[in-house]
Amino acid sequence: MAARLLSGTRVAEAIRAEFLPAVAAFTAAAGRAPALSIVLVGDNPASQVYVRNKERAGAAAGLTVTIHRLPASTSESDLLALVRRLNADPACDGILVQAPLPHGLGKAAEQRVFDAIDPAKDVDGFHPHNVGLLVQGRATLAPCTPSGVIELLEREEIPMAGRRAVVLGRSEIVGKPMALLLLQRDATVTICHSRTQDLAARAAEADILVAAIGRPALVRRSFVKPGAVVIDVGINALTARQQVIDIFGEGSERLKSFDAKGSTLVGDVHPEVEHVAGCLTPVPGGVGPLTIAMLLKNTLAAASHRAPA
Amino acid sequence: MAARLLSGTRVAEAIRAEFLPAVAAFTAAAGRAPALSIVLVGDNPASQVYVRNKERAGAAAGLTVTIHRLPASTSESDLLALVRRLNADPACDGILVQAPLPHGLGKAAEQRVFDAIDPAKDVDGFHPHNVGLLVQGRATLAPCTPSGVIELLEREEIPMAGRRAVVLGRSEIVGKPMALLLLQRDATVTICHSRTQDLAARAAEADILVAAIGRPALVRRSFVKPGAVVIDVGINALTARQQVIDIFGEGSERLKSFDAKGSTLVGDVHPEVEHVAGCLTPVPGGVGPLTIAMLLKNTLAAASHRAPA
Repeated sequence: MAARLLSGTRVAEAIRAEFLPAVAAFTAAAGRAPALSIVLVGDNPASQVYVRNKERAGAAAGLTVTIHRLPASTSESDLLALVRRLNADPACDGILVQAPLPHGLGKAAEQRVFDAIDPAKDVDGFHPHNVGLLVQGRATLAPCTPSGVIELLEREEIPMAGRRAVVLGRSEIVGKPMALLLLQRDATVTICHSRTQDLAARAAEADILVAAIGRPALVRRSFVKPGAVVIDVGINALTARQQVIDIFGEGSERLKSFDAKGSTLVGDVHPEVEHVAGCLTPVPGGVGPLTIAMLLKNTLAAASHRAPA
Repeated sequence: MAARLLSGTRVAEAIRAEFLPAVAAFTAAAGRAPALSIVLVGDNPASQVYVRNKERAGAAAGLTVTIHRLPASTSESDLLALVRRLNADPACDGILVQAPLPHGLGKAAEQRVFDAIDPAKDVDGFHPHNVGLLVQGRATLAPCTPSGVIELLEREEIPMAGRRAVVLGRSEIVGKPMALLLLQRDATVTICHSRTQDLAARAAEADILVAAIGRPALVRRSFVKPGAVVIDVGINALTARQQVIDIFGEGSERLKSFDAKGSTLVGDVHPEVEHVAGCLTPVPGGVGPLTIAMLLKNTLAAASHRAPA
């Protein structure tokens, strides 16, 4: 019995379809489109891809997307000056500084840059003020990946109230806000992490299991209660052929695709989980498209909040 | 086998003993004592008691404590004006608006009053900015009750890392920050609430169980894994004699005390849990004194942060 696949791509399409008239209405009322500024520092290849995807999706949805590309050698003060300029710019609604910043800046500087973003323009929802509002159940800008997961669960009519949800991972970007959002939907929530003992047993208690640890195919059959809903947030690029064989098997479609392209993506969930889960998000085509859809939604929300029609 | 009682009173004494020299050092350096302003609106009897206890403890610890008493009919704008005046007052380090505010003001107004407090003076740790910093593991002002519980666990050398912690209750003041603080100590944390199914079974999974639901003696023997650490955050006043008999028994010391005084306090944990828990905080004398100790500590922290020595 194979799990029902929850298509993030399809749900993201549905969100976009609802979103387009709202963008058009804002644009007509404000005399300009909602505007997203993305700051990209250095030449991290993954960041380049993410930013390009965000730019394309934003443009396709009728937003104005401006990319500010800065060299890896950019100083903290130059970066802060750019953020302050965007904060003050009335024609900028949303600001996204693509993480991670180059290592040379250091963690403290990275934090100061993120903290400098005006909370009203913080479309990633990372500013402490927005995080606090999220805890208190009154966020206007929530982190995109976990709020995309909630959208998926709601639109797929998967009940959360009273069910056990287990979140694997406690990052600021996914794990913690995911747990808080599930709690707000009245799930009984457990957060697991690297120090959790007997991780498989904890995961197997879940009616809804969210894997967000960034370890390829870590979640095996033993982690999953039969019939559970499994949300795979991991996006891990495999570049070693043997690893692809170990996970997907000799003669798999994935191995053929890997041999043609030199890499393939795998989530935190092993393919064998398809035979035990009730519902499962694929990778790619699961949570990824939802994250981008929610970023666009946050940009419109920030624009509408700043300049109410 | 009776549980080891964890005396909050004793730990609060230890905190105070460490705290006094720091207050003296601040006072000598700054030329004034750390100053706490408490705003008390209306005549809720419980609030009167809480504020008096905070005032006494603050004065005994060498702080300047000023109580601003306002009638229950005070308007939102008058309350906001007072908060802004205290925000701007260089001689005020900490501001505490005693909750709950009179019902007449309404929930939205109450929220606006709390939000108006300068986060740097927010010694209750309720401002969204401080809540966000708590989530991100960089709080300077954390809510007093859950941080008092952490102090107790640390000073009693109760390990948290890798252990299962279950928090009953998801309030902004206790449940949620408690879960976040336990998570930061590397516990595997589950948050339960009114919609949780089979609450007793969830609670019985805990190595560390924190009860913060405000229901007298709800946590029975069946909620507790033998040997677990049980922290009782509830402070419920019993005024019905039959309830005292039901919980403590005919001929109990508590019933005699009730008959003499007309009321008695009970936590969220039933007395029978003493026979199954490994460690237990009593009520009174458990979490209550710690909450006040942490409030004083937060006031000193706010003062030191505003005017570094």
